[in-house]
Amino acid sequence: MAEQPANSAPPPAETPAAAPPATGGEGGTISKKAAKKAEAKAKKEAEKARRAAEQAAAAAASASAAQAEDLAKDNYGQETHETKLSADAMEINLKTLGDEHVGKKVELRAWLQNARMQGSKMAFVELREEGNWAIQGVVAASPEGTPVSRQMVKWVGAINPESFVVVEATVQKPLEPVKACRVSNYELHITKCFVHAAAPTVLGMTLAAANRPVANFSDEEVPVEQGVEKLSLASAGDATGIPAASMLTHLDNIVMHKRSAVQQAIADIRSEMKELYRSYLRSHGFKEFEPPCLIGAASEGGANVFRLPYFEKEAYLAQSPQFYKQIEIAGGRKRVFSVGPVFRAENSNTPRHMTEFTGLDMEMEIKKDYREVLDVLEGVLLHMFRNIKERCADEIALVRSVYPSEEFLLPEPGQEVRLTFAEGQKLLREEGPEEFRNVSDDEDMSTPQEKALGALIRKKYNTDFYVLDKFPESARPFYAKEDPTNRKVTNAYDLFMRGQEICSGGQRINDPVELEARIRTKGIDPASPGIKEYVDIFRQAGVPAHGGGGIGLDRVVAFYLNLPSIHLAAFFPRTPKRLLP
Amino acid sequence: MAEQPANSAPPPAETPAAAPPATGGEGGTISKKAAKKAEAKAKKEAEKARRAAEQAAAAAASASAAQAEDLAKDNYGQETHETKLSADAMEINLKTLGDEHVGKKVELRAWLQNARMQGSKMAFVELREEGNWAIQGVVAASPEGTPVSRQMVKWVGAINPESFVVVEATVQKPLEPVKACRVSNYELHITKCFVHAAAPTVLGMTLAAANRPVANFSDEEVPVEQGVEKLSLASAGDATGIPAASMLTHLDNIVMHKRSAVQQAIADIRSEMKELYRSYLRSHGFKEFEPPCLIGAASEGGANVFRLPYFEKEAYLAQSPQFYKQIEIAGGRKRVFSVGPVFRAENSNTPRHMTEFTGLDMEMEIKKDYREVLDVLEGVLLHMFRNIKERCADEIALVRSVYPSEEFLLPEPGQEVRLTFAEGQKLLREEGPEEFRNVSDDEDMSTPQEKALGALIRKKYNTDFYVLDKFPESARPFYAKEDPTNRKVTNAYDLFMRGQEICSGGQRINDPVELEARIRTKGIDPASPGIKEYVDIFRQAGVPAHGGGGIGLDRVVAFYLNLPSIHLAAFFPRTPKRLLP
Repeated sequence: MAEQPANSAPPPAETPAAAPPATGGEGGTISKKAAKKAEAKAKKEAEKARRAAEQAAAAAASASAAQAEDLAKDNYGQETHETKLSADAMEINLKTLGDEHVGKKVELRAWLQNARMQGSKMAFVELREEGNWAIQGVVAASPEGTPVSRQMVKWVGAINPESFVVVEATVQKPLEPVKACRVSNYELHITKCFVHAAAPTVLGMTLAAANRPVANFSDEEVPVEQGVEKLSLASAGDATGIPAASMLTHLDNIVMHKRSAVQQAIADIRSEMKELYRSYLRSHGFKEFEPPCLIGAASEGGANVFRLPYFEKEAYLAQSPQFYKQIEIAGGRKRVFSVGPVFRAENSNTPRHMTEFTGLDMEMEIKKDYREVLDVLEGVLLHMFRNIKERCADEIALVRSVYPSEEFLLPEPGQEVRLTFAEGQKLLREEGPEEFRNVSDDEDMSTPQEKALGALIRKKYNTDFYVLDKFPESARPFYAKEDPTNRKVTNAYDLFMRGQEICSGGQRINDPVELEARIRTKGIDPASPGIKEYVDIFRQAGVPAHGGGGIGLDRVVAFYLNLPSIHLAAFFPRTPKRLLP
Repeated sequence: MAEQPANSAPPPAETPAAAPPATGGEGGTISKKAAKKAEAKAKKEAEKARRAAEQAAAAAASASAAQAEDLAKDNYGQETHETKLSADAMEINLKTLGDEHVGKKVELRAWLQNARMQGSKMAFVELREEGNWAIQGVVAASPEGTPVSRQMVKWVGAINPESFVVVEATVQKPLEPVKACRVSNYELHITKCFVHAAAPTVLGMTLAAANRPVANFSDEEVPVEQGVEKLSLASAGDATGIPAASMLTHLDNIVMHKRSAVQQAIADIRSEMKELYRSYLRSHGFKEFEPPCLIGAASEGGANVFRLPYFEKEAYLAQSPQFYKQIEIAGGRKRVFSVGPVFRAENSNTPRHMTEFTGLDMEMEIKKDYREVLDVLEGVLLHMFRNIKERCADEIALVRSVYPSEEFLLPEPGQEVRLTFAEGQKLLREEGPEEFRNVSDDEDMSTPQEKALGALIRKKYNTDFYVLDKFPESARPFYAKEDPTNRKVTNAYDLFMRGQEICSGGQRINDPVELEARIRTKGIDPASPGIKEYVDIFRQAGVPAHGGGGIGLDRVVAFYLNLPSIHLAAFFPRTPKRLLP
């Protein structure tokens, strides 16, 4: 037997409940009275059935009439496998929409970020393709009820924001530019609209809230309950009146966090920075390689390193590709670079710390002077800063509209600022704040000292990007090459953005005898695990003088945009308390 | 007082030791006898001093004469801070050396890979810049002893191979092309040669041995003692007579392993493959993102996952960026890709396994058909294969000279081979080896079945690259979307090279209700850690239909070149027994 469709109308009663056949049965023939009675009953029941059938038919007719009233019923609803748009509808891309599309029938797949009714016959929607590329859509009921009916208008106007929809529409020029959308010169007159994937009625965080600056970055905060109305009102006095959420709420609602225009702009800037780094180094003769994450010894001191069981042994997560890029040089390469994750097991819960971030590393042969490396590091960063300003002008402006910041000042070509560490300290002593009057040339700088020096340099040289060279010997690891003319300092440097270090580098010792002596001087046993293998690299065969540097991509992005936290620059920020999602 | 230079000759005695002045002292005036005695003594001492001075002068003269004999003494030796080449020597790059350099004075910094004497007045060296870019250098004693002396020739001819040297030379055309070097049309007539960094007298593995095919890949082998003579003679019958070393010996001598031309060629091919992947996807509207390595739940089943203590909790190393690229799509991106490390804690010690490798991943919105994803995956791989053949023709030829392999066959444009899994099984049943006559359409293939099918497809379609689509439901994870017209199979596929899988992908379920139901069907608790957070992603807001794939870069390189082990394709292969260097 075929299954009966669940919602179909009851079938009309085919036959009246018939009287039992007058066959001989128990007790012989039936009396006339009884027969009459039965006939009356049958008639009655037949009449009842007839009326029920009539009623059902009427109901069915009425339902069909009601349906018939919505002449647009095939033009909207939940998308199914049978949903079809017109074959002649042309796919569009909001970034390339132009006058040639006006009047054309088009198709768009997009997130509906907003819908509102304008009376009962018209609704406006905002359709977003990616980033902040949105266009206004208009659904207006046609007098004849097709292609758009009043029911359709009502239905579209009630779609949950952040649902993904498929629309068919005609491109039109609006009477006035649409202020609410990035695409302001065109609008879509919608003739079909299907929900491809519905958003919930109440979002964990609205798009408007996601686009507000993050209110606080504490990892300690107790997560708030879901629902916009419960978000902390850190900037209640703000003119928008839209509550700002904490970083924890953003991460608990990562889908909405990532959909915000500001996060998409930051992501775009980050990706372009990375690409600019790679393309510059490739065009300067650098070869890409891949250092390992899993390593056999906590070679760089052992502090803040993640350890894990590795079959019968123990493994560590690399804190930097330092040794591995040197192995590439020892292994016959003249210039190498890498882009990849590095790890720090530091239990610091601040907006400046993460446990996993992205390192942009490079290493190269030094021909005559260790400053050749500095030329490349300075060159690649200036290349990134100058080009990002052009390639991502819109994205930078968008980020600034949420997180205001001053223009990142760059030196004029040929006017790059390189001070020695001692010159920096002198500047700090002579022109810096009172508390830094006694800073020493032999000790590393503190973060407040670095920031104060950054402010002095900005004022004096009009740049937010500069180099401090010749760091004191005591402030550098054992592999840093000493200045042969002054052994109190090294051929090592840091590069700064807005008074914060973003790159550390220098010349490395390439002679195993000198290296081993320095390791001893630093109080390290040259036979200890990881160290021994490192020194042995330079014993295997002759290794040319070389140097390099490591740039923190997360820091570059965060400091360039002057973001309040490095966590905003990361795709999936990892902190001691946060590994999800 | 000024410090006396350590090695200076003793100063000539200026004055004879003078007699004490005849001043009045103890005991009154001095007797005449005593005065004469004193005078005689003084004369004697003066004479002694004179003779000493004469001897010293003679010795100094003799030493200087001996030095003068080597008129080239400043043109060779260990490089020091004082070493200077001529200011007019021009830096060259072997790749761009041309006729315009002939007769010019040039400078080259390179690895000396070979040196041999030709009689007592001439030595030949091979100078390598990078990869296999080497040039022949000639050091011939000049009749006048300068700029090149016999001592210099002898010294240069005895430099340890794989030392790094700095030479000054004149570019000349050799009488006959130099067969031993890649640069065969020019040679360097060396006038200065300094050792910048010396190699040891005996290398752990010679360059010639490093350039031979690796003899065996067992991780179990006891490492051999250092020294070429002790290397295993796995291919003793080889015409070169040069012993081949095991993979363990190569890794123990990683500097020499990496200096081999074959490893540098493989590294070049790998880097270009990666760049081709990125540039193709970027030009097709894909945005790069960075998935995390540290994750909070072993979300993809939990088998073969590395665990580590993470402050008060536990963390895991990501086995793939699968969930994270889907979060990017849910987070408002239409097309994303990533390149980065992935980890497998599989205790398999074979040439096909590693614990860390590089994933090339992508994910994209599906507009109308899940095969849109397949178009991109097929497109990017064909782009990589077609371009690598041109960009790295020399490198591929070099690798083939060490590891012979048949040309990697590609389909003609428009003739790409896509079979369904069922069609592949049918081919195997009908035309494959006897043992595969009963293979089923509902079970995943074994490695031998895949290889046999690869051979059949090569014969039938003349390609080593193809797709198997519509994998059975039972062979795919819970997130794979079923074919709505046939629920026994999925909209998921594998891509193959030479009968081996290099990419797995498919459409994902984007509806949380459907996803949760499938998770239950697969016997997984939808509330379990990692799974719950994954399903919740699709509940946060509407997510469009999407799909993607993950390509194993190590496999692509190894299979393209038909290398005997995937370990040869990696920069620092990680295996259960090997984490160093």
